[in-house]
Amino acid sequence: MKIAVDAWGGDYAPVEILKGIKNAVFNDLELIVIGSKQKLSPLYSELNMNEDLFPIEDTPQVIEMKEHPAEAIRKKPQSTIVRGVQLLAQKKIDAFISAGNSGALMAAAWFGLQRIADIERPAIATLIPNVDSSTVLLDVGANVDCKPKQLLHFGVMGAEYAKAALNIERPRVGLLTIGEEEGKGNELVKSAYQYFKNRCDFLNFEFIGNVEGHDIIDGKADVVVCDGFTGNALLKFGEGLLEFINNMLFLHIVDEELRKRLKEVWKRFDRSEIGGAPLLGVEGICMVCHGKSRARDLTSAIFRAKDLVEQKMAERIRDGLSHLNCIQ
Amino acid sequence: MKIAVDAWGGDYAPVEILKGIKNAVFNDLELIVIGSKQKLSPLYSELNMNEDLFPIEDTPQVIEMKEHPAEAIRKKPQSTIVRGVQLLAQKKIDAFISAGNSGALMAAAWFGLQRIADIERPAIATLIPNVDSSTVLLDVGANVDCKPKQLLHFGVMGAEYAKAALNIERPRVGLLTIGEEEGKGNELVKSAYQYFKNRCDFLNFEFIGNVEGHDIIDGKADVVVCDGFTGNALLKFGEGLLEFINNMLFLHIVDEELRKRLKEVWKRFDRSEIGGAPLLGVEGICMVCHGKSRARDLTSAIFRAKDLVEQKMAERIRDGLSHLNCIQ
Repeated sequence: MKIAVDAWGGDYAPVEILKGIKNAVFNDLELIVIGSKQKLSPLYSELNMNEDLFPIEDTPQVIEMKEHPAEAIRKKPQSTIVRGVQLLAQKKIDAFISAGNSGALMAAAWFGLQRIADIERPAIATLIPNVDSSTVLLDVGANVDCKPKQLLHFGVMGAEYAKAALNIERPRVGLLTIGEEEGKGNELVKSAYQYFKNRCDFLNFEFIGNVEGHDIIDGKADVVVCDGFTGNALLKFGEGLLEFINNMLFLHIVDEELRKRLKEVWKRFDRSEIGGAPLLGVEGICMVCHGKSRARDLTSAIFRAKDLVEQKMAERIRDGLSHLNCIQ
Repeated sequence: MKIAVDAWGGDYAPVEILKGIKNAVFNDLELIVIGSKQKLSPLYSELNMNEDLFPIEDTPQVIEMKEHPAEAIRKKPQSTIVRGVQLLAQKKIDAFISAGNSGALMAAAWFGLQRIADIERPAIATLIPNVDSSTVLLDVGANVDCKPKQLLHFGVMGAEYAKAALNIERPRVGLLTIGEEEGKGNELVKSAYQYFKNRCDFLNFEFIGNVEGHDIIDGKADVVVCDGFTGNALLKFGEGLLEFINNMLFLHIVDEELRKRLKEVWKRFDRSEIGGAPLLGVEGICMVCHGKSRARDLTSAIFRAKDLVEQKMAERIRDGLSHLNCIQ
C-alpha cells in the first residue's frame, strides 16, 4: 500500500510532518513524501530519514494557507496538494494526506478525482468524542449550501465510515436540527427528513430521525448529518471551547501529580487520537488534517488512511448507494 | 418595576422556580408568580412565601414541554406562557421570564407583542463565556431560516445587548461563517456581509467581518451573528460538551481538594451565571430560560431582566435601528 503525505501542509510543516511520517513506518506500508527535494534533503539528514525508505515526490510549489483555493490550484499545478491529488487520480498511490489549505485540497479533489456513483458532493467526515465512543459528524466543511438529497448521501457515506472506523454493524444515523420531532428544523432539514424517511427500507443504516446539538455528545447517534456550514461552525466552536477549558484547567492546577491525572482524562479530547478527516465520496482516500497538526496527528492520520484503504471505503460507499438507485 | 415569572416552566418547576423567585427579593422589585393559585398555595406555605410579597397571577393551564408551540398557545389561552406575554403586551409588567416550552414562548411573543420599529424577526441572544469575558451569540433558535437583512438586524440588536449586558461601548460584531475572508460562507452569509459592509458608516457597532466558530470563544468579537438554526445547534453542542467534560472530570477526580479547585474553575461555565436569554426585537423584556433551570438560574434571570429593563433595551434597539433607515 502506498500513502503519500504533503510535507508542506500546516502550521508546523515540514518538520512535524516529517517526524509524523517517520513514526508511521509499518510492515509493507510505503510512505511517499511530497515536497521540494532540495529543501527536504537537509531535513532528511537532520531527522535521520532515508530516501529509500521515504521516497520523495519532488514538487517545488506550495499553496499557502491564506491563498484562495480555486485560484491557487490553477496557478500552482506543481504544488504539493495538486500533485498528491494527481497521484491519487492516477492510482499511483492509495491515499493522500495533507494538513495544508483544506479549501485547496477540496477544490483539487473536486476537479481531479472521480466521484463515486451518483454522489453529487463529497463530504468531510470527522469523529467527535462522545460519552461512549465517537460520533461521525459530516459534512464539516466541504459544502456550504446543500440540497436535501445530498444530506441523504452524506448519511450513506457517514454510515459506511462508522462501520469502517468505529466497527459498528448498523449505525444509527440522525439529522441535526432544532427540536427532535419530525417537521422541526429549517427548510433543508425538513425536506431531507422526507428523503431519509421514504427510503428507510433501503438504507445501509438505521435512520433515527432528528437529533440536536447535544446528541452529538451524548451518544444517541453513531452518525450525525448536517450541511457543511453548520458542521464546520460546530467543529470549530468545539475546538475553541476545548482549548479554552484545557488552558484554564492547566493554568489553575499547578500540582504535578494532579496535572498528570488531568492529562490522562483529557486524552479523550486529543485531536491526534482522531487522525484526520477523510473526504468521502471520491475514488481513493483523501485525508484532510488540521492546520495545527503535529507529528502525532500525522502518524494517526496515516494509520487511519491505511485502515480506510484496507476497508475499501469507496466500494463500501458504492454498495451503500446501490440500494438507493430509486432516488432522483 | 414588575417582573412576572412562569411558575410552571421547566423540568424543575414549580419548586425550583419558586425558590429562585424567593431569592431574588430586592428593594422595590415586584415579583409576580404566574400559575394556579390552588396549586401554588400549599407550596407557598412550605417555602415560607407570602402572597403579599409574591402576588399570584392565577392561571390554571400549563403548556407542556413536548406540545406543539403554535397549537398549544391556541388551545391554552389560560396558560402561564400566554398570560405572561399578555401582561407584558398590556404593559402591566416590565418583564416576563419562563423556563417552559421555548417554542411556545416565542410563538406567543411573536403574535402577542409589538415588534420594535422595522424588526422583521425577533432573535434570542445568549452569552457564551470567552477567554476574556463573554460573547453575545444570536440568533440561537428563534428563526431557522433567515434573510440577509435579518442578520443585519440581529447585529444591531446584539450590539445593543452587548452594550447593556457587558458594558461595552462600541461592540465588535462578526458574522459567523467558514473562512475569515470576505466572500467566504454560504449564500446567506455572503449576502449579509454586503448588508453589513455597505452600511458600516451607520452602524451602532464596529463590523469586524467574518468570524469562525472558535472566534466565539477566543474573544475576537463581542457579538457573533448567525441564523437561529446554526446558533441553536452550536449552543446545544457546547452544552453537551461541557456536561460531558464536567462529568468526566468529576468522575475521575476523587481528591476532595482538587474537586473543590475544579469547581472553582468550572464556575466560568455555570449556566446560572448567565441567567436566561432575552428575545430581542419585541417591546418589553421577554426572557427564555433553559428547561433545566434551577433556583439559581431563575434568580440570575430575574436580575438580568431587571437590568435590561433599567437599561431600556427596546429604546436602545430602536435607536440603533434609526441609523439604518436607509435599508430596504
